Amino acid sequence: MTVSLENNAPHKVVIIGGGFGGLYAAKALKKANVDVTLIDKRNFHLFQPLLYQVATGTLSPSDISAPLRSVFSKSKNTKVLLGEVNNIDVKAQQVILGDELISYDTLIIATGANHYYFGKDHWKEFAPGLKTVEDAIEMRRRIFGAFEAAEKETDPEKRRAFLTFVIVGGGPTGVELAGAIAELAYKTLKEDFRSINTSDAKILLLQGGTRVLPHIAPELSQAAEESLQKLGVVIHTSTRVKNIEDDIVTFKQDNELIKILTKTILWAAGVQGSAMGKILAESTSVECDHTGRVIVEPNLTIEGHNNIFVIGDLANFSHQNGKVLPGVAPVAKQQGEYVGKLIKRRLQGLTLPDFHYNDVGSLAMIGQNLAVVDLGLIKLTGFIAWVFWLLVHIYFLIEFDTKLLIVFQWAWNYITRNRRSRLITGRADFLEAKTVN
Amino acid sequence: MTVSLENNAPHKVVIIGGGFGGLYAAKALKKANVDVTLIDKRNFHLFQPLLYQVATGTLSPSDISAPLRSVFSKSKNTKVLLGEVNNIDVKAQQVILGDELISYDTLIIATGANHYYFGKDHWKEFAPGLKTVEDAIEMRRRIFGAFEAAEKETDPEKRRAFLTFVIVGGGPTGVELAGAIAELAYKTLKEDFRSINTSDAKILLLQGGTRVLPHIAPELSQAAEESLQKLGVVIHTSTRVKNIEDDIVTFKQDNELIKILTKTILWAAGVQGSAMGKILAESTSVECDHTGRVIVEPNLTIEGHNNIFVIGDLANFSHQNGKVLPGVAPVAKQQGEYVGKLIKRRLQGLTLPDFHYNDVGSLAMIGQNLAVVDLGLIKLTGFIAWVFWLLVHIYFLIEFDTKLLIVFQWAWNYITRNRRSRLITGRADFLEAKTVN
Repeated sequence: MTVSLENNAPHKVVIIGGGFGGLYAAKALKKANVDVTLIDKRNFHLFQPLLYQVATGTLSPSDISAPLRSVFSKSKNTKVLLGEVNNIDVKAQQVILGDELISYDTLIIATGANHYYFGKDHWKEFAPGLKTVEDAIEMRRRIFGAFEAAEKETDPEKRRAFLTFVIVGGGPTGVELAGAIAELAYKTLKEDFRSINTSDAKILLLQGGTRVLPHIAPELSQAAEESLQKLGVVIHTSTRVKNIEDDIVTFKQDNELIKILTKTILWAAGVQGSAMGKILAESTSVECDHTGRVIVEPNLTIEGHNNIFVIGDLANFSHQNGKVLPGVAPVAKQQGEYVGKLIKRRLQGLTLPDFHYNDVGSLAMIGQNLAVVDLGLIKLTGFIAWVFWLLVHIYFLIEFDTKLLIVFQWAWNYITRNRRSRLITGRADFLEAKTVN
Repeated sequence: MTVSLENNAPHKVVIIGGGFGGLYAAKALKKANVDVTLIDKRNFHLFQPLLYQVATGTLSPSDISAPLRSVFSKSKNTKVLLGEVNNIDVKAQQVILGDELISYDTLIIATGANHYYFGKDHWKEFAPGLKTVEDAIEMRRRIFGAFEAAEKETDPEKRRAFLTFVIVGGGPTGVELAGAIAELAYKTLKEDFRSINTSDAKILLLQGGTRVLPHIAPELSQAAEESLQKLGVVIHTSTRVKNIEDDIVTFKQDNELIKILTKTILWAAGVQGSAMGKILAESTSVECDHTGRVIVEPNLTIEGHNNIFVIGDLANFSHQNGKVLPGVAPVAKQQGEYVGKLIKRRLQGLTLPDFHYNDVGSLAMIGQNLAVVDLGLIKLTGFIAWVFWLLVHIYFLIEFDTKLLIVFQWAWNYITRNRRSRLITGRADFLEAKTVN
């Protein structure tokens, strides 16, 4: 138990979550006269925007991870704690971590979001999502395992099911997954099998709305759809997934019910605020929106608690043009930096104007030499967008830890078209589990 | 079911196992007029000699793995099959893979070795060994998880147990693990924790024989022991492990029973031939030695079956100086190449002289700038041995697939002393599981 009763003890900041929000809040407080405790369930920060590259065999988990301890090795005011917060005692200003109580003066909650299956949680087993390293390894196992199983399968219908990949959700993750799997099937793996022709693979992208990438300009959605179709992806827009079973996806399009036989279903559709939102709502009067995100004040605190901040994917911030800010890395990063700065100001008896998101634009990679970039006035497609995408990601990666290595690895992978990281690991039963049905 | 009854069909070679033996046998047959089927449980070849670097957070699994399909992508006579062989029908000349029968004219068995706990299989749970990627990730989880748990632990005795690492076995793997953990505790992680001093860690290496690395020259064992001690490793030779429980290792030394309280026990002691040896012994008259290795003829076939070869760690080959060849990569590689060549000769109605192992020497890495190399006449220690070790491994790695990338990654890691790949993944319960006791 850690309770400080001294008056001259430094201000205690507890940060829950080492994603973009938490990481950049802690970084902003590096040189401040505060005691920072950063709590995360994992011992590493994960660069989630590139997780789909792990799922499709281009990168290794450690290529996109930075050990939190190493990030803050030199920040002697920052203590990293590994563990899961069970509860928050707002009155006592304590966070409950297992049997330990950690006192705070200021609390920053940045625990992000989880998958949301629109209330159909049993779909999860058949259609894994992509939020953690384990999720990515599971997707990788399923994707590469499906090609392996197809190679061994002699029944044509079953073989077709193994070679059918359905991605639910046409946001950035869905688009990037679909593009990457198309490149795998139609390019990378083409020479590797003897019984199957990987070009027979079918890749379906199911999107609820009328266009993919609804958050960017319509002409770029159009460009993205054309690029995906050129790669071989079949796009169904205005669809509604009705059911997901082990081998069958059922969806509705133009009032028609379509059933697809497939062994690989990947979820890139809904997200909801993590459990910490609910915990917070129970111990304070704060409200959550219908997806479990915490509704925050213009300065990212919660109503009635000026010393509790909620940032990143868990926050519902709607004080800018009335629209809720999207759950993307740049928003979390800027919110983390803002809160760090605001805490420093407050210690000087000052404050900051309300948080304002500086929109840096949106971008999505579709395949090699294919991307779309929306910077507002400037819109890019094709090769130039791809180069831009690459530079932005390299810049972000350099900023935290993995540095030059990743650049080299990327260049290498793109030159050789080689998917080194296509290990099928974890469960050894994928063939058995898949061929039983 | 694949049965060829045609007379002019190419000679069918089935290889079970994609380790060094199987891989190099298949490579030797690349351009021959044979049909090669390479069967492995995994979809990748693993460079096992560097597995300890994954276990200690320097390399990622995919840095030391090559997808088998990509290795043989251009060898159109080679088919890679993913699966586990259940049995061999020697009379029908068929391998049974699930519900599939695969016919062979020549069979090469190269399924390697597993851990051997001297009949105490229940020790396995408390003292994992290091043979697979999953083993390495489990070791990594335990090693880094122990430091994390120590950081949270307030009871001094328990904290000491978390900071005590016991490695059972003083062969190359044990020595390399001990050295790497010492570098982690005393160098890499030194600045990363706030409650513990990682320099308080104790690393014990238990060796049954009178010296570590018994397969190399005594003066090099001496040098290795001195290097390890300089790094901070405590070496106990002439010990006999009597019991392994969850938190306690009991061993006998000089008739004294010593109990060590520890949360991390790593097994690098015994190995035994894989299950395929037993299967073979049941279907033929071949004999296995006491560690389950198959006793082979001078040309690596088995008695009474001129078309069945056993190579690599599974083979007991004692026709050279009466000593059994050790289970190391160069032996497996040379045996694979020999068998591939012999098959090609036989197709021409010729044969080859008996297999002869060309001893390339032994080497072990102890730490940064520290290694021992025994080339017979030439013996190296310290920095020059380390450079030699590095060059040899880079050469071997370049030969199969991961090429230049690894060189860069290594250089990077050694320049920055950074362990990027220290992710704790897989089970999320390590803290709970560890702190309960």
